[in-house]
Amino acid sequence: MTVPVRRDAGVTVPAGFRAAGVAAGIKASGALDLALVVNDGPRDAAAGVFTRNVVKAAPVLWSREVLKQHRLRAVVLNSGGANAATGPGGFQDTHATAEKVAEVLGSGAIEVAVCSTGLIGERLPMPAVLSGVDSASGALADSAGAGLDAATAVMTTDSVPKQAAAGHPDGWRVGGFAKGAGMLAPNLATMLSVLTTDAEAEPEVLDRALRAATAVTFDRLDVDGGTSTNDTVLVLASGASGIRPGEAALTEWLTAVALDLVLQLRADSEGATKDVDIVVTGAESDGDAIAVGRTVAEDNLVKTALFGSDPNWGRIAMALGRAAARIDPDLVSIAINGVTLFANGTTAADRSAADLSGRAVEIVIDLGLGEAGATVYTTDLSHGYVEENSAYSS
Amino acid sequence: MTVPVRRDAGVTVPAGFRAAGVAAGIKASGALDLALVVNDGPRDAAAGVFTRNVVKAAPVLWSREVLKQHRLRAVVLNSGGANAATGPGGFQDTHATAEKVAEVLGSGAIEVAVCSTGLIGERLPMPAVLSGVDSASGALADSAGAGLDAATAVMTTDSVPKQAAAGHPDGWRVGGFAKGAGMLAPNLATMLSVLTTDAEAEPEVLDRALRAATAVTFDRLDVDGGTSTNDTVLVLASGASGIRPGEAALTEWLTAVALDLVLQLRADSEGATKDVDIVVTGAESDGDAIAVGRTVAEDNLVKTALFGSDPNWGRIAMALGRAAARIDPDLVSIAINGVTLFANGTTAADRSAADLSGRAVEIVIDLGLGEAGATVYTTDLSHGYVEENSAYSS
Repeated sequence: MTVPVRRDAGVTVPAGFRAAGVAAGIKASGALDLALVVNDGPRDAAAGVFTRNVVKAAPVLWSREVLKQHRLRAVVLNSGGANAATGPGGFQDTHATAEKVAEVLGSGAIEVAVCSTGLIGERLPMPAVLSGVDSASGALADSAGAGLDAATAVMTTDSVPKQAAAGHPDGWRVGGFAKGAGMLAPNLATMLSVLTTDAEAEPEVLDRALRAATAVTFDRLDVDGGTSTNDTVLVLASGASGIRPGEAALTEWLTAVALDLVLQLRADSEGATKDVDIVVTGAESDGDAIAVGRTVAEDNLVKTALFGSDPNWGRIAMALGRAAARIDPDLVSIAINGVTLFANGTTAADRSAADLSGRAVEIVIDLGLGEAGATVYTTDLSHGYVEENSAYSS
Repeated sequence: MTVPVRRDAGVTVPAGFRAAGVAAGIKASGALDLALVVNDGPRDAAAGVFTRNVVKAAPVLWSREVLKQHRLRAVVLNSGGANAATGPGGFQDTHATAEKVAEVLGSGAIEVAVCSTGLIGERLPMPAVLSGVDSASGALADSAGAGLDAATAVMTTDSVPKQAAAGHPDGWRVGGFAKGAGMLAPNLATMLSVLTTDAEAEPEVLDRALRAATAVTFDRLDVDGGTSTNDTVLVLASGASGIRPGEAALTEWLTAVALDLVLQLRADSEGATKDVDIVVTGAESDGDAIAVGRTVAEDNLVKTALFGSDPNWGRIAMALGRAAARIDPDLVSIAINGVTLFANGTTAADRSAADLSGRAVEIVIDLGLGEAGATVYTTDLSHGYVEENSAYSS
């Protein structure tokens, strides 16, 4: 079934959720920088996936522990500081933030996840964070505008907020927002996302559905190989629809909303001028397909060629040849935007036959060995990327 | 012992070698594009290491077979075309080139290695290549100028030829040239190098010495993660000095010349504005140290920060945290140009204390776990890199 996804609203589309985004003064600019998403129930199942980077920010360490109960009343998120590499003091700051949210909501800190994004290595301005929680609590609403404020408050170098939502014909819904504009990589990115649903779901079903959804969406977005200290995707299920979908439907709807958020993240990633789908087919295993897709996605010579609108399949062949996957060069074919340029170990068509003048690029790599496949979502490497990332912290 | 390395001459410094570089008409520009290095003996031991990319160019397939005999009379090299992904016809072209060299030298094709560099996926203009072999044969000389011509004829986007040589106090010498300016990566790069020595060496000793030398030099140069289809490092030993050094001394001298060539390759790599040494210490194993060094070296967010002269240790911490190595974040310290910025899980000094205004940057990452270490040589990621690589083939 094709899932119809809308982008004009997000976490407040499912019933049972309120959200807010406020300017707490964490960012010097005065922009929105603190978001709160509250699950009013009647149920409180939740699940989360976190960065696999061994250097984990304090909020990741906290939220990972909290999620072991598979229940969440609320998520508090801040931009303006990652609270990573901040030592025991940084962890205390995260804990104090969760305690403050619990206090204003009348719940326990153990029911509050915390997410942070921004520069690594700086402590958060805690008076601003704590008073921001008060402001956000007062601003909580179930309106589309409140969801948009929350989506806006988590932005760092993002140029636009990213929201998505989809309703199931049976009457339950999924919504969400995401942020992330660089460091988009294997196994998440400087990427935060909160998904909500008013479906009823047992915690273990919700957990499996989230992992299945992120495996083919957030985990397949690879802009620059960076895997952040703070990456987090959470899902909260209020059960307010009173409907308990099957696991397959829940997974499909979560996947559709997550994929839409991923495509928005890619379109807004730092300096990108091309939206590139790398479709690997004919692999011996999913792992091989993913390895080939990621190695090509991360290759700077491939990425700069794409920036130059150059269908340089030779660089793609070079890149896939160093992937940790079984490959027989004589069986590989490479097509760019529908034109097969390499097959049977040599040139199949003059590369001028492939048109890369548009923003959308599809590279299909058929390994010719088996039945497995994977799609990896990436971008080109442009002057804009270099400019934005060489100036970010100054 | 410190090995004194000179850069004003190369492959013709050791006795028993002649070289030439000619304009064969492979490059449309009319620049030098075909090089020949001949070992006049009395001995002909040789060894080679080749790209680990599974997509191997025809000359790599040929030369790898030839080297199984551990004997070489000559090496012929061309720029202007990689002869990679050219199918059986491309392999025939390589074979014909070796046959032609054998004919003019009165040897067998099995004693002739072939190296090619340039664009992937195009057949070589064989009439130009074969007549170039005749011209090169006529120009062979043991002069410094002939060595320089050979070093010049292998250049692609290199802006300068790279040569190095060193004499041992006992009276034997090592010389060499290298080319490569992009796709510089783990396990070699679009990188060709020919080393010569007039030491006497048994083939198995020469092979071990070459592998030990490349493991800490060419294999540690990682500019953009690219591993080319054509990477080759060869060493030829004429025995003309009549001296048989110990394996340790031979390894040390080969390493010194190879390292000097690597530093020249890095200094000339596409668009680089920083020469960056990533020194990893305190690792549990050499493999862990290399993995950490390479992951940091290939991280585009680290590289763009360096381009911006920004001592952004947070990005270094993020990058090393995703390396395939054992790491305890609380034991890691990171120093940039002599200033420790991160230690004990948090900020150790304000990053403004580290001065990145110069071209040379040393990043020392101490993992605090063991005794192993490794140095990886890399560069920043600049507008120049993007410009040169997005325009290369057009």
